[in-house]
Amino acid sequence: MARFTRRGSQKAGETPGTVTYVGEAREADVVISRFEYDEEDVSRDILSSPDAASSARTTGKVSWINVDGVHDIEKIQSVGEGFDLHPLVIEDIAHTGQRPKIEEYGSSLFIVLRMLRWNDEADEIDDEQVSLVLGPSWVLSFQEREGDVFEPIRGRLLSNRGRIRRLGADYLVYSLIDAVVDHYFAVLEILGERVEDLGEDMTENPKHADLDAIRHLKRELLFMRKSIWPLREVLAGIQREESDLVGEATSPYLRDVYDHTIQIIDTVETLRDMVSGLMDLYLSSVSNRMNEVMKVLTIIATIFIPLSFIAGLYGMNFDFMPELHWKYGYFAVLGVMLAAGVGMLLFFRRRRWL
Amino acid sequence: MARFTRRGSQKAGETPGTVTYVGEAREADVVISRFEYDEEDVSRDILSSPDAASSARTTGKVSWINVDGVHDIEKIQSVGEGFDLHPLVIEDIAHTGQRPKIEEYGSSLFIVLRMLRWNDEADEIDDEQVSLVLGPSWVLSFQEREGDVFEPIRGRLLSNRGRIRRLGADYLVYSLIDAVVDHYFAVLEILGERVEDLGEDMTENPKHADLDAIRHLKRELLFMRKSIWPLREVLAGIQREESDLVGEATSPYLRDVYDHTIQIIDTVETLRDMVSGLMDLYLSSVSNRMNEVMKVLTIIATIFIPLSFIAGLYGMNFDFMPELHWKYGYFAVLGVMLAAGVGMLLFFRRRRWL
Amino acid sequence: MARFTRRGSQKAGETPGTVTYVGEAREADVVISRFEYDEEDVSRDILSSPDAASSARTTGKVSWINVDGVHDIEKIQSVGEGFDLHPLVIEDIAHTGQRPKIEEYGSSLFIVLRMLRWNDEADEIDDEQVSLVLGPSWVLSFQEREGDVFEPIRGRLLSNRGRIRRLGADYLVYSLIDAVVDHYFAVLEILGERVEDLGEDMTENPKHADLDAIRHLKRELLFMRKSIWPLREVLAGIQREESDLVGEATSPYLRDVYDHTIQIIDTVETLRDMVSGLMDLYLSSVSNRMNEVMKVLTIIATIFIPLSFIAGLYGMNFDFMPELHWKYGYFAVLGVMLAAGVGMLLFFRRRRWL
Amino acid sequence: MARFTRRGSQKAGETPGTVTYVGEAREADVVISRFEYDEEDVSRDILSSPDAASSARTTGKVSWINVDGVHDIEKIQSVGEGFDLHPLVIEDIAHTGQRPKIEEYGSSLFIVLRMLRWNDEADEIDDEQVSLVLGPSWVLSFQEREGDVFEPIRGRLLSNRGRIRRLGADYLVYSLIDAVVDHYFAVLEILGERVEDLGEDMTENPKHADLDAIRHLKRELLFMRKSIWPLREVLAGIQREESDLVGEATSPYLRDVYDHTIQIIDTVETLRDMVSGLMDLYLSSVSNRMNEVMKVLTIIATIFIPLSFIAGLYGMNFDFMPELHWKYGYFAVLGVMLAAGVGMLLFFRRRRWL
Amino acid sequence: MARFTRRGSQKAGETPGTVTYVGEAREADVVISRFEYDEEDVSRDILSSPDAASSARTTGKVSWINVDGVHDIEKIQSVGEGFDLHPLVIEDIAHTGQRPKIEEYGSSLFIVLRMLRWNDEADEIDDEQVSLVLGPSWVLSFQEREGDVFEPIRGRLLSNRGRIRRLGADYLVYSLIDAVVDHYFAVLEILGERVEDLGEDMTENPKHADLDAIRHLKRELLFMRKSIWPLREVLAGIQREESDLVGEATSPYLRDVYDHTIQIIDTVETLRDMVSGLMDLYLSSVSNRMNEVMKVLTIIATIFIPLSFIAGLYGMNFDFMPELHWKYGYFAVLGVMLAAGVGMLLFFRRRRWL
Repeated sequence: MARFTRRGSQKAGETPGTVTYVGEAREADVVISRFEYDEEDVSRDILSSPDAASSARTTGKVSWINVDGVHDIEKIQSVGEGFDLHPLVIEDIAHTGQRPKIEEYGSSLFIVLRMLRWNDEADEIDDEQVSLVLGPSWVLSFQEREGDVFEPIRGRLLSNRGRIRRLGADYLVYSLIDAVVDHYFAVLEILGERVEDLGEDMTENPKHADLDAIRHLKRELLFMRKSIWPLREVLAGIQREESDLVGEATSPYLRDVYDHTIQIIDTVETLRDMVSGLMDLYLSSVSNRMNEVMKVLTIIATIFIPLSFIAGLYGMNFDFMPELHWKYGYFAVLGVMLAAGVGMLLFFRRRRWL
Repeated sequence: MARFTRRGSQKAGETPGTVTYVGEAREADVVISRFEYDEEDVSRDILSSPDAASSARTTGKVSWINVDGVHDIEKIQSVGEGFDLHPLVIEDIAHTGQRPKIEEYGSSLFIVLRMLRWNDEADEIDDEQVSLVLGPSWVLSFQEREGDVFEPIRGRLLSNRGRIRRLGADYLVYSLIDAVVDHYFAVLEILGERVEDLGEDMTENPKHADLDAIRHLKRELLFMRKSIWPLREVLAGIQREESDLVGEATSPYLRDVYDHTIQIIDTVETLRDMVSGLMDLYLSSVSNRMNEVMKVLTIIATIFIPLSFIAGLYGMNFDFMPELHWKYGYFAVLGVMLAAGVGMLLFFRRRRWL
Repeated sequence: MARFTRRGSQKAGETPGTVTYVGEAREADVVISRFEYDEEDVSRDILSSPDAASSARTTGKVSWINVDGVHDIEKIQSVGEGFDLHPLVIEDIAHTGQRPKIEEYGSSLFIVLRMLRWNDEADEIDDEQVSLVLGPSWVLSFQEREGDVFEPIRGRLLSNRGRIRRLGADYLVYSLIDAVVDHYFAVLEILGERVEDLGEDMTENPKHADLDAIRHLKRELLFMRKSIWPLREVLAGIQREESDLVGEATSPYLRDVYDHTIQIIDTVETLRDMVSGLMDLYLSSVSNRMNEVMKVLTIIATIFIPLSFIAGLYGMNFDFMPELHWKYGYFAVLGVMLAAGVGMLLFFRRRRWL
Repeated sequence: MARFTRRGSQKAGETPGTVTYVGEAREADVVISRFEYDEEDVSRDILSSPDAASSARTTGKVSWINVDGVHDIEKIQSVGEGFDLHPLVIEDIAHTGQRPKIEEYGSSLFIVLRMLRWNDEADEIDDEQVSLVLGPSWVLSFQEREGDVFEPIRGRLLSNRGRIRRLGADYLVYSLIDAVVDHYFAVLEILGERVEDLGEDMTENPKHADLDAIRHLKRELLFMRKSIWPLREVLAGIQREESDLVGEATSPYLRDVYDHTIQIIDTVETLRDMVSGLMDLYLSSVSNRMNEVMKVLTIIATIFIPLSFIAGLYGMNFDFMPELHWKYGYFAVLGVMLAAGVGMLLFFRRRRWL
Repeated sequence: MARFTRRGSQKAGETPGTVTYVGEAREADVVISRFEYDEEDVSRDILSSPDAASSARTTGKVSWINVDGVHDIEKIQSVGEGFDLHPLVIEDIAHTGQRPKIEEYGSSLFIVLRMLRWNDEADEIDDEQVSLVLGPSWVLSFQEREGDVFEPIRGRLLSNRGRIRRLGADYLVYSLIDAVVDHYFAVLEILGERVEDLGEDMTENPKHADLDAIRHLKRELLFMRKSIWPLREVLAGIQREESDLVGEATSPYLRDVYDHTIQIIDTVETLRDMVSGLMDLYLSSVSNRMNEVMKVLTIIATIFIPLSFIAGLYGMNFDFMPELHWKYGYFAVLGVMLAAGVGMLLFFRRRRWL
């Protein structure tokens, strides 16, 4: 649950703009890599020092500085200062519990996204904050750990596939957002299959353990919704604000990724509806089974209790009980019992209980 | 359920604007047909090559190019390029899981609709994406497979009935949207009858299988709602944006189809309310029946359990039990039992349990 | 239920603007009546031919043409054409399943209302479409059948009571809307009484048949809501659009009828809340009664089952059972039984089950 | 319930603007009182005739005409005409079922409020319509009956406490609204205590009668909400419209009373939440008690039913039943029974049913 | 519950602007402390008289006057008058039940916040009103009692850490708001842990006492929500109104604290969802346990009731019952009983009840 209540701000009492890392303690080194490209050329290198990053600002090419790991506060800060980032931006990059948001700071645009991937081991959604800063000809991206969904973009940059090398830094930012959003579909597909499978299982044989599965799916969908819902506002915001940083050629692409986000939200809501439906299915099947149990009890009891009474009657030890001495008394009583039992059964059948 | 989670975008990692078909694999050929008409003349032909389509742009007449089948990516692309469509438009045409939407691209208007028809065999709503592109004097329409709801429009074009040949490409686009929306009424009528029939059945004899029917109706209505709800925004959008492509004469017709959409949404919501009502009806009748079962059990048990106890009492084998030797002991006991039973019945009647 | 899913548009595939009547088949003749009035004079006549109606456009007086019956398509059409109505307006007049709406067509204003009256025989709300067209000095009104809520207006016109003859066609339209809205109060009063009566009945003795009454009231309120809700938008629309057709003197009256509509919607929502409350009342009283039944069963069973066991114990036929031969064994057992029974009762009382 | 469906308009068919009184028949005389004041002077008198009221319009002082009783239509009308009120205003004053609203009529502002007081006898909220009309230097107030929440204002006027004599008619109107709103807090406090007390009672011993209390509180809160909710709009409206009648000095006070209204709405919603919580508490405690009852039944029955069976077994009268003749057969059986009973108890304890 | 219905206005009938303290009676003295600082200097002192406070208005430095305790009406009033506060501002400061709000009064900005802290003893959220007034170069802050969340700010002022001494009064107000909001995270963390712990407890062994815990958490979350929700509007208001009092340098910081508020609201909603989930978990586990109880009862009863009947049958005392005299009659009956019991068990197993 800690995923839900993660605090996205400095510790109480700290000076605002103080950069503290609030995620899990991490050992791995911070890795800073840089792409520089224009239509003709592309170069890729790993920077040994964060200070080298800011040289990107002056080349005529587009630069993409990617930072894996935000737990080394000093490095983040020195990258940030190289690009004149506002202290609050640096703070938000390090405090990795932010909601998706977009903020304009003078000549740069700061965007926070949640990168979601399905974690098979933990059987839950893995969540990582991706912070993007878009400048006139450079893009900074910060991730919590190595491994991301940006490999295809790197491939396109190196092989010059598509429009990516022709269009500027804004198109690169769009591509990064698009890669993150596209991966939501992959997560949704896994959740969708889960919902479908559970639905089929439960139609055949609903059991108590299904409740846990339902709750699990509900939680993951809630988590997903929480990460994606604000993104819609972010993307609408980019289009509305008409920043100079986003060119006209990139604009339809942003509208496109906005559409995808709407579609994902739609699907998440549909899946949530379906999971609620499964809950109802479970409850109604439990109550249905309960009803059957009760019916069997009632039928058995209502048939045999009166019969037992009759048997008890003739088990009494009174001296003078004339029926006991009739020759066919026993068989007469058996007959009466049979008639009573059959009568009961017919009564039940008439009431459609059988 | 795949209907609900269909992905409406490129596979993760693909270059945006990459055109991939994501629907079921299809064998049928792509068929491209063309209408060219003005007030005097109309011609209809099947185009052998997609390249021929773009010649439509230069005639003085109105052209309607209809493409059946979007699984042959190359053909779609060559039609699209003939009309200078934006790569994202072509991508959206091929990825047939789009929500209804409207987008303006410079001199053309791109509209996505969901064409719904009732599939009797599968006993569910059949859903197909219809993509329309409106240019100054031409309309492109793309469908997933042959067979559509546009036959009456073709008839009107050929026989010059109504205003269709007098008004321009915008009126043709309106007619296509109107045909799709009108067919929603047909689907709604089928669903409405289902709901009504089920309601009548259940009033007489609610049974467990009705739950499945309710769930089925709920799902279809949810599906329908998902397809129609965004359409409202689309149609409001056309009216609001006041594109040059839509003339004043067509404007009241668009308002009219907007009204129909509102009415359909209204009816879908009403039907959803009714289906919820059926669910309540089912639950209350189940609990009512359960109550009756329990009452019978209680009445039988509470009458006979005490009587059985009395019988058991006099079945005890104590040496000294004076009642056993009374002459009319047996009959006295029978009398007591009768009195107890009748007393119980009167008690139940007073409490209105009988 | 057909009341809920009535289609308000042409049959699928028809040319838009085709005028087809979609209501029940009707035999009665279409009756066209006309009022012509100014402050000095008033005349009232029945028109023999629909063509005569349009002469109204040129007199200096205010004319009100009322058409009872819209099933004779030709007559409707010839009236409509006499006043230059847009084909879609004529279509909407004949398709009597429209939602309340307002539309401006050049020099005239088209308003659709639902006239509701309580039908005692069918025990439900009777619903009829009233279409109004307001021109510079004339008003057309179309109703589905004879009989309406406009008699008091006719009386005021003839007797020159109030302002109606002094003010123009816009005030007449207001008066017609006001008459329709005022009648909603009458219907609401009937429904309100029903809800109140049912509530009182159920407090005393809730029974299964009440469920049907609740459902019935719910349906009627839903139906009413569906008819009235859009009216609010219509009336807000008239005020907002500030059409030249509506003079300043009439404006406060429209605000007044808007207030009434808000009040009706408020009351409908309150009644819906109350009906939900009745449902809860029913359910809680059913479950309460069920609890009582169960308690009685439990008390009887838990007292007598152990006693019966004791009786059974001493009904066993073992050769060697010393208690059986004790002189006061029988009475001792009776004493034990009495003590056990009383103990049970005290236990129940302590737990507040009695 | 009549409180909820009171009709706030003329009877169906009446000329709009017809003034009819729709409340309960009242005997008391209409009392018209007048305050005239400026910073130096204040006078208070009872007017014998309604015509005298309008002389107030011409003095240089601020006049407050208060009318107790709106059932004498003629008097209301003659007051109204003296101040040139619109016929619809006079109608709304007499039809005392209006929602709170604000309307601007040329040079005057018409405000409707609901004055709520707790009626101890009827144990419900007492509701009265207060209609205010604000002119340039005069205020009219109409109430349904004598007795109101305005005494403190009269006191301040007479003793010249606070700013009331210094500021104009707009401040007087503010003071009247503020007095009404302030009294809502008193009503809320009573309801709040009720909710609190009921909650404490129910935690100790929930009983069926609590359901009625819950429903009662629910209804009163619903009633209160219905009266207060529109007031918020009214007060926002005064601030937004920036009528010339409301001076700058009074403006912060109106914002203040608006804040109070928001706070009251907030508290009403919170109380409604709490009452819903009480309902849940009741239901869960009922089902909890039911569960306990069922558990006792189950434990008793499952222990003794098998034991009774064993006893029955050895009560059979077969000639050849070897166990019956064993010397310690009886004690062996008793032992078996004891073991079975203890086993059952242990089983229950292991399952945490005891 | 008094926390929920606290009245935030003068007593009914009081002159508006009358300053009355409405909180609990307090003994402690009112303490007024003052900070004066600019980039070079800082001084801190305790003011002996409230009149001294207003001298702050004329120094060139930034002054922060903090008042602990608002129960001494006269002192509050004399501070307020020293800074020309509007009477309604002073009233709101003393009536400590205000919702968070922002109001502009000419040259000063009045802000009300709720300061929340977790009270371990009472095991609930402690709530205190903080009223801030921002002038051109001074800030007033009023608290209900000593002890607050501002210590770190005092520390930063004294030690000149961060930007606080460089930026003006607006940054100080931001810092105070930020400190309050930051403390919400601390409270949320406690509540989050509670929810988590309760969830774990209940998965293992849900018990009736958990209901109280759920209700407790629900109430605290509701309380928190009520305090924080309006804050969002307040912070959006500061940014929107673009008062001259808030400089451009402080603006991004206010956006940042707005973001935190959104995040807190988000988390509160998530926790509320989770608590609802716990309620469902409780209910489903109770009904599940109930089902198990009922099943055991049914199985025991349905197996033994028929067997007991058979035993009773052969306990009858008829003279002529041939089976009784068969040599292996007893064993045959035992066999029949065994077969019936096993048959029942198999039947239950087939129906998956075991």
